[in-house]
Amino acid sequence: MEIAEPLRVLIEELNKLPSIGRKSAQRLALHLVKKEKKELEDLIQALTDLKDNIKFCSICFNISSEDICMVCKNPKRDKGLICIVEEASDVIAIENTNEFNGQYHVLGGVLSPLSGIGVEELKIKELIVRLKTEDIREIILALNPDTEGETTSLYLAKLLKPLGIKVTRLARGLPIGGDLEFTDEATIGRAVLNRIDI
Amino acid sequence: MEIAEPLRVLIEELNKLPSIGRKSAQRLALHLVKKEKKELEDLIQALTDLKDNIKFCSICFNISSEDICMVCKNPKRDKGLICIVEEASDVIAIENTNEFNGQYHVLGGVLSPLSGIGVEELKIKELIVRLKTEDIREIILALNPDTEGETTSLYLAKLLKPLGIKVTRLARGLPIGGDLEFTDEATIGRAVLNRIDI
Repeated sequence: MEIAEPLRVLIEELNKLPSIGRKSAQRLALHLVKKEKKELEDLIQALTDLKDNIKFCSICFNISSEDICMVCKNPKRDKGLICIVEEASDVIAIENTNEFNGQYHVLGGVLSPLSGIGVEELKIKELIVRLKTEDIREIILALNPDTEGETTSLYLAKLLKPLGIKVTRLARGLPIGGDLEFTDEATIGRAVLNRIDI
Repeated sequence: MEIAEPLRVLIEELNKLPSIGRKSAQRLALHLVKKEKKELEDLIQALTDLKDNIKFCSICFNISSEDICMVCKNPKRDKGLICIVEEASDVIAIENTNEFNGQYHVLGGVLSPLSGIGVEELKIKELIVRLKTEDIREIILALNPDTEGETTSLYLAKLLKPLGIKVTRLARGLPIGGDLEFTDEATIGRAVLNRIDI
């Protein structure tokens, strides 16, 4: 098989990315060859900026281009409300809703004894420091609704409640636009238990 | 929505690529943030190499890192056999089979009056020059088995046959590993018509 070396190398690099298989990597690389140099230059520039200018916020551990992230720096955001998430991607998911106007705290994972992730591996110590120095009214646990997320939520709730802070978690129930018939039993069961007056 | 600027820009750039939607772009960008700098540097290097070192072979118009591509330069490949393909991606597809040991000629498209692609837009003039200067025994038409590909194949066959060169095209029939029940009628029809002795 004789393929130009730069093309072969790029296909290999793209193939290393998650959910990019061999065929997709090939199609992407060929697309980049065919496109104007400008588009390729913009992509290189964006990747270089990411490499050089991305760090983690020293307060909430969100992804940031400065020492303190835009959310922590914004004076218009509610300083008394912290939403605890697993990963920086969850911050983006919640920011996309435009429904939340508080602060974040990125744990960097969830408790998972099998993967060797304990309390020390997560940013829990840093959270406690924030709670002591900042004036926090409420904490929202927004971890994934799976076993490890639930376990971590329970652990955090036990840890935080004695501090006299209100602790809440995201509602469980039917997803908007979903179909009752195709929703799993666990979700429907929770939705029945947590039914609300209308 | 408050997302670090370099991350937002990269998500936008990735979203411009074919078959990379908003969510995929986001996942890819976050993956690149989390990975070690080395992986990101390798990707940037591969893209930069592609930008700086990729051109098109001056003989066959395949993608190449030099003026003449690896296939055209390789003395072990059959100089008397040219496989005509639509795009450089088709060269990779055929090279991957390891079944072909001749030369290529990349047309850069197929005849398509509706899209304004005529004979002048394709590398047909250049093909004729090759046929006059090189000692070509056989031409394989490996265009896509669709209407435009077939039309272009017919056009080329008419053009090339008077030159006394053997013109063939790729076989049509059942795909290997396919299922007769789920194969379309046109393909089965062709497979019946072109049945071969065993």
